[in-house]
Amino acid sequence: MSRIADLQTPAVLIDLDIAQVNLQRAQQAADKAGLQLRPHIKTHKLPFFARRQVALGAMGITVQKLGEAEVMADAGLDDLLLTFNIIGAAKLGRLKALHDRVTIRVVADSLACVEGLAATFTDPSRPLGVFVECDTGMGRCGVQSPEAALDLARTIIAAPGLAFAGLMTYPAAGKYAAANHWLAEAKALFDAENIPVPAITTGGTPDIWHMQDASGIATEYRPGTYIYMDRSQVAAGAATFDDCALTVLATVVSRPTEHRAIIDAGSKALTSDLLGLVGHGYVLEYPDARIVGLSEEHGTIDVSDCPEKPQIGDLVRIVPNHCCPVTNLFDQVHLVRADSVLETLQVAARGRVD
Amino acid sequence: MSRIADLQTPAVLIDLDIAQVNLQRAQQAADKAGLQLRPHIKTHKLPFFARRQVALGAMGITVQKLGEAEVMADAGLDDLLLTFNIIGAAKLGRLKALHDRVTIRVVADSLACVEGLAATFTDPSRPLGVFVECDTGMGRCGVQSPEAALDLARTIIAAPGLAFAGLMTYPAAGKYAAANHWLAEAKALFDAENIPVPAITTGGTPDIWHMQDASGIATEYRPGTYIYMDRSQVAAGAATFDDCALTVLATVVSRPTEHRAIIDAGSKALTSDLLGLVGHGYVLEYPDARIVGLSEEHGTIDVSDCPEKPQIGDLVRIVPNHCCPVTNLFDQVHLVRADSVLETLQVAARGRVD
Repeated sequence: MSRIADLQTPAVLIDLDIAQVNLQRAQQAADKAGLQLRPHIKTHKLPFFARRQVALGAMGITVQKLGEAEVMADAGLDDLLLTFNIIGAAKLGRLKALHDRVTIRVVADSLACVEGLAATFTDPSRPLGVFVECDTGMGRCGVQSPEAALDLARTIIAAPGLAFAGLMTYPAAGKYAAANHWLAEAKALFDAENIPVPAITTGGTPDIWHMQDASGIATEYRPGTYIYMDRSQVAAGAATFDDCALTVLATVVSRPTEHRAIIDAGSKALTSDLLGLVGHGYVLEYPDARIVGLSEEHGTIDVSDCPEKPQIGDLVRIVPNHCCPVTNLFDQVHLVRADSVLETLQVAARGRVD
Repeated sequence: MSRIADLQTPAVLIDLDIAQVNLQRAQQAADKAGLQLRPHIKTHKLPFFARRQVALGAMGITVQKLGEAEVMADAGLDDLLLTFNIIGAAKLGRLKALHDRVTIRVVADSLACVEGLAATFTDPSRPLGVFVECDTGMGRCGVQSPEAALDLARTIIAAPGLAFAGLMTYPAAGKYAAANHWLAEAKALFDAENIPVPAITTGGTPDIWHMQDASGIATEYRPGTYIYMDRSQVAAGAATFDDCALTVLATVVSRPTEHRAIIDAGSKALTSDLLGLVGHGYVLEYPDARIVGLSEEHGTIDVSDCPEKPQIGDLVRIVPNHCCPVTNLFDQVHLVRADSVLETLQVAARGRVD
């Protein structure tokens, strides 16, 4: 077992005990709310944690890319929801190959998308489950009204090789009440037509501790970031810094002025994601430090408010603004406890861009 | 030979002819200015292009990480400048191993950094070349005054296993005149003390076509982005969109409203880098489109100003704001000409974080 202090930087550390508590706490909240949990693995991209999420009670996992689905299926995960429109012959072929070996469901928000699926999946004895994606306020993908959701569901139901799986949304952060209202309206429309809605799936870590407000409407919840948490979730009130399992270990490589420290973690380690925040992360050892700038390989820290200032060669641990894209930048992450490295994992689904 | 239209998206395309013209044009500008060119390979991370840059007349290459240096040395590149402070025993050991097999020089901007180098490199018959990094306005690493540069150079000269290699700066974009002035002042100080300055190295693509203004002061120039160019360089006046060799190929996966198109390229393909720009890239086929938002796997495009609007399944090519971190997100890039894919290259130095 090696020590954190012996790692070369920048490096990604995952505090295993904190991650475990985050996983358990969310599963307990879901159990209490009567919701199934279907964690989004985009955050960790690791079969190690996907298996652990399922072992703790998750009904399956969520993936965002076919490539992520393939990695997870290879690792033995066998109940997947792919929350992305699959368009084009090559990707439909890959989806078909996945459907032949695991349970995988997808989403659609247009006739064009459903037509592609319907032309590829034609076996009524093993239909592909398709959710209608609903834009409940996020302004991204999704049908624009409950009526449009009903229309698209009818098209799915009419396709012999497809099965209507239900409604799916990714709610805008902090707008879960509006999302719940939208979904309830849609459900009422389906009920009035006697069309069963097998599942209603919503999610998002920012509103995870309001999960119970979705119960009675939604049946499943798909949080991703909750396993690691990050500075944006702290800002959203969903976590404290003590709940943040992922940190970027960096070395102070320059102290050019009294007020400036430069670390070897820039945008290629922390990403440029701001998510509405000021600055690029939170330095655990120097709460008064402000990461004021990033170039690709340098982070510039204003240490003028720090009573004690870091010296060249010092190690610091940074909670990034957004943990999900950070894991996508590193081939490996290190599972740690206190000062020790317990295990180093390859990020199996890193860079699965398509 | 396959077609671009057959690629799965998102994918990175490099127009080989445009890249070649960019390389040639910069080499010619350097030749004309009497400057040596030492291209920064952080942009492409490919031995393929590093070799081509040297074949066209570059004196060697610049790297930003030991991991990049190791990949390039393995590929036969044998004259490297590593423009990053190397701190700590493990990295000093890797630097020593590199120094044993290729010509590699480094930078330093502090006594602490020089002391680490001096303790590791002790052989006067094969000294390590060390540049003093100068902060000429960038506000990142670097000594803060010409006097401090002279002081640090004296320490380097006094170390038996080190050789003073000269002065190095990365000038702030658009402030090359101030950088040149700073370097000229420093050079005068060294001259007054009869201390030879073997080289003065500056760089940056934003001011590449003002390279000749640095001649007479600098001896070498280290541009990186110039091989591919990007939207930020167009904004800086260093390129037109016709000069942009790198594009991200994406598919329109949703048209939820009349004015909104969603593509399968988000921040994990285009990065969140804004570099002072509004929006997240330039869509070649739809000059009036505005990429107004990115989440990890989705790009949201406002197509309200487009006379013709993209349809689901359409392919688009996007010039990103900043091409360097884009290549760090993909395992492969595709060399293309017109509609054809000529060759697919593994991004050998991708993810070499340390």
